[in-house]
Amino acid sequence: MSAVDVPSGRPAGIPTPRPGDPRLARLSVNQATVKQWDVAALVRGCAAAGVPAVGLWREPVAAAGLARSAKLVRDAGLRVSSYCRGGFLTGPDGAAALADNRAAIDEAAELGAPCLVMVVGGLPEGSRDLPGARARVAERLAELAPYAGERGVRLALEPLHPMFCADRAVLSTLGQALDLAEPFPAEQVGVVVDAYHVWWDPQVERRIAQAAGRIASFQVCDWVLPLPADVLNGRGMAGDGCIDLRALRRSAEAAGYTGDIEVEIFNDALTQADADAVVATIARRHIEHVLEPEV
Amino acid sequence: MSAVDVPSGRPAGIPTPRPGDPRLARLSVNQATVKQWDVAALVRGCAAAGVPAVGLWREPVAAAGLARSAKLVRDAGLRVSSYCRGGFLTGPDGAAALADNRAAIDEAAELGAPCLVMVVGGLPEGSRDLPGARARVAERLAELAPYAGERGVRLALEPLHPMFCADRAVLSTLGQALDLAEPFPAEQVGVVVDAYHVWWDPQVERRIAQAAGRIASFQVCDWVLPLPADVLNGRGMAGDGCIDLRALRRSAEAAGYTGDIEVEIFNDALTQADADAVVATIARRHIEHVLEPEV
Repeated sequence: MSAVDVPSGRPAGIPTPRPGDPRLARLSVNQATVKQWDVAALVRGCAAAGVPAVGLWREPVAAAGLARSAKLVRDAGLRVSSYCRGGFLTGPDGAAALADNRAAIDEAAELGAPCLVMVVGGLPEGSRDLPGARARVAERLAELAPYAGERGVRLALEPLHPMFCADRAVLSTLGQALDLAEPFPAEQVGVVVDAYHVWWDPQVERRIAQAAGRIASFQVCDWVLPLPADVLNGRGMAGDGCIDLRALRRSAEAAGYTGDIEVEIFNDALTQADADAVVATIARRHIEHVLEPEV
Repeated sequence: MSAVDVPSGRPAGIPTPRPGDPRLARLSVNQATVKQWDVAALVRGCAAAGVPAVGLWREPVAAAGLARSAKLVRDAGLRVSSYCRGGFLTGPDGAAALADNRAAIDEAAELGAPCLVMVVGGLPEGSRDLPGARARVAERLAELAPYAGERGVRLALEPLHPMFCADRAVLSTLGQALDLAEPFPAEQVGVVVDAYHVWWDPQVERRIAQAAGRIASFQVCDWVLPLPADVLNGRGMAGDGCIDLRALRRSAEAAGYTGDIEVEIFNDALTQADADAVVATIARRHIEHVLEPEV
């Protein structure tokens, strides 16, 4: 029986690549895409599919055990591309937020993750003070950056799509992330280029070029319509939507980025599907819609 | 019985202002907010509430008759603050889009509307070429601007929130709108500052300042969570969400804007409520959340 794409159900456009296929050399699967898998299953599934890197999240790592998670990844010959997530720096209790972020940095270091993805947080409940929230992010980042740098972990500032400004991240554009990162050494503070969050930005190409040396993570998924209620879990598999992922990947590479291409798709249909089939689709779509076309 | 706010059901914070109250001198109600009303009912309801201006839409104006709509507004002593809408310039059939926009400009002129709001359109079906769609908008705008100028109608470019980039407007920021307007005389092409669409932008204050002389329309409503599916009809009444409307209104005035403050709220709860009560809430909220606080 030939493979079909998940979740579209379309026949696979190309054969599923085999482990060792050089076209998968930079592919990473983020655990949120297949959260039906615990860390052990994610590592086993990615290794079996020839995916050499994984993006991990704090909660499943805590459930599996930090040291054990690190060993699982290492023993399978995989690497961690990013650790999700720190941030949430906009609230009234700065001390608690900083303590939690230091713990996340320590975990990232033990996992060998090159970066901790920072989702900075939205407006505090009842607040209309967006400039104030943004200022708190900058202040608290200054507390965390040296701590991260000493542990070999880079804080990866993730601008989120502006539709998340109120509730998840007052950091809304790549330009704003670069301004926020600017006072810090590039090895302490970088930025995430997540296609879903930045594709609409009229300045995206220029900002990716300016991000040379600061791109800590490059993430892909696709913009599909209609958006679901609450808009969080409506992301699409590469090729199912309207983002020119290939163009964004080229821009990141033109800016010197040679790191992993991480697939993070929040979509309930994927987390309810057979995870091996999801990873196989991710691998095919990576070749078809993210890498250069084959001649 | 004391008044309650719509749709929150909260007791009204202040007494409903009476017709002639100078605090309503710049208030306009956009017909989409109370689309249960036809043009005649809108004009009658706004006049009765002391709201001196209305924003009109093409479909209800066509249903009421263009000349009759103009007469209704004039006879009631009201004015038209904006006419919605032109645009949709990104598709393959440029000639049809231009013809339709010229007709909309003619209608706006007959209504005495100072501006035609332009929602430029999203990506054509199946397309991933965002720069191409944006280029088509610029090209077609060049065809329309002189035509509008000759008829005393200003094209008001409306950046829409980036969550509408794929399906409604590839024009996503005020900065992009100003770049698009720049080649044209300010009396031909202006911009809309709609709080709902621009509040998240880290550059919004700077861009409003740069928009001096180009602000053709200033619109308010509030950002409320959670967003509904498809995200179009989830806008809130001023004061129910997290936008600092007063700050944005001050910025527009600092840039020289003295025109109407138009309330455009897409929200199913409002169009199913008693429209007179909706307008009364709008008038109270305008005073409480948009104008300067009273001492």
